[in-house]
Amino acid sequence: MKESRLRRVKPTILKIGGSVITDKSKELQVRMQTINRLAEEIHKASTKNLIIVHGGGSFGHPLAQRYSIVEGFKEDKQKTGFSETHHVMTVLNGLFMDALIWHNIPAVSITPSSCIVTKNGRIQCFEDAPLKILLKMAFLPVLYGDAVLDSKLGFTIISGDQLVSILAIKFNAERIIIGVDVDGLYDEDPKAEKSAKMFKYLTLEKLKKLHSKLDKPTTYDVTGGMFGKVAELLPVIEHGIPVTIVNATKPNYIYKALEGRKVKSTLIGKE
Amino acid sequence: MKESRLRRVKPTILKIGGSVITDKSKELQVRMQTINRLAEEIHKASTKNLIIVHGGGSFGHPLAQRYSIVEGFKEDKQKTGFSETHHVMTVLNGLFMDALIWHNIPAVSITPSSCIVTKNGRIQCFEDAPLKILLKMAFLPVLYGDAVLDSKLGFTIISGDQLVSILAIKFNAERIIIGVDVDGLYDEDPKAEKSAKMFKYLTLEKLKKLHSKLDKPTTYDVTGGMFGKVAELLPVIEHGIPVTIVNATKPNYIYKALEGRKVKSTLIGKE
Repeated sequence: MKESRLRRVKPTILKIGGSVITDKSKELQVRMQTINRLAEEIHKASTKNLIIVHGGGSFGHPLAQRYSIVEGFKEDKQKTGFSETHHVMTVLNGLFMDALIWHNIPAVSITPSSCIVTKNGRIQCFEDAPLKILLKMAFLPVLYGDAVLDSKLGFTIISGDQLVSILAIKFNAERIIIGVDVDGLYDEDPKAEKSAKMFKYLTLEKLKKLHSKLDKPTTYDVTGGMFGKVAELLPVIEHGIPVTIVNATKPNYIYKALEGRKVKSTLIGKE
Repeated sequence: MKESRLRRVKPTILKIGGSVITDKSKELQVRMQTINRLAEEIHKASTKNLIIVHGGGSFGHPLAQRYSIVEGFKEDKQKTGFSETHHVMTVLNGLFMDALIWHNIPAVSITPSSCIVTKNGRIQCFEDAPLKILLKMAFLPVLYGDAVLDSKLGFTIISGDQLVSILAIKFNAERIIIGVDVDGLYDEDPKAEKSAKMFKYLTLEKLKKLHSKLDKPTTYDVTGGMFGKVAELLPVIEHGIPVTIVNATKPNYIYKALEGRKVKSTLIGKE
């Protein structure tokens, strides 16, 4: 049976950073051309058993920061802030879905806040029954960083990176591809330091050492930028799932990464 | 504590029909002025513990019909049809949420297909943890008729009316208000028969008799129009939850119904 064959293919998790699909220097600024190009690349690669997660960029982050959503509920005026933060994320996701469906991809969005509750910011329950059927039927599920309800804090933000990590472990992913707006993982911030050195390959041990050295984020990424990203990656690499960090702003890099072809990137493996 | 007091208020479920917020004679035709007026009325009434469910109108129904989504998965080309049907429903919901948030209402959408799986078209599992926290925190949750995954059929459509019914019983609702584009429930289709007689009050027994006489829907409402609506209402009325059917296209009718004021409508009670 075709379906059971598909089920045996371990999924690929593709993360598309918010800095790729939005312009983080302006609020609510989508990069529609980039989204359309990525949809074309994803269609061209037609990877079996793919799950996509995208970030919030200049949609989710500025609002989440303005209303201190990550920190949880403290005062009533945050409530419409929570509503707005979730709402703009559904708008960004809608634009992303538009492009995928326009390219004839059977993509279906899964709204994190509708099926996930966190406890102090970490996933406490995750109803994955719809996701399992989507994968079984070879749909392409799309999730995203979202403003979610939290059993302790009232509400908070769940990063796309935390979603990538839990999905990879839950579905025993074959690999993770992380599309960002730089060429890979560097020893310093490549946007600030010209001397920054990019890694082609990193082991878990080296990644842990690097993590302690990475600067905490300075820009308005409420979920921690590259520092937070690496923190979320540690358990999946421990689990033996390889991670490729690749520049999604450069044409065909995501396509090549999906196809398993050679492309400038940082590969992180357990050993 | 304010929160626990709010929890003791039994919820009101407000259904807004797809024929109210869209023009069913044209595909993807939203009635934005009506949506804005309804948002204003909902804001003005500020009903405690409110849950809103809206229909699909000219967004969900034509696509669902074109790709035979209700009937379930039969061939591959239905898959992008399913993706599209769900996608346009998120677009309609997005416009509805826009209006509510613009009116300063802390409204949060719950995507049915992300937390519900049906079995042969009836709800099999429903992750309601996010919804419970939303109600506890006095947010206004908004759900809608949606294209959902089905454990037997692959996928299908869940009507807003089925959602109303399950939510009312799950949360032991105080009452249900159903906003439609006619003044109430008639003995014949009031749009076709000028002699149609409207009921001011109906008991469960009379409703059951009427249901067997109602015409099956002729227009493109894939979830059964007034016939399907009444079928979904029978169990909640059996449960003792009163239902008011009211014209949501007429200014202040929904406001008056929410406030419990006198307004032209059909009230259906158990006895």
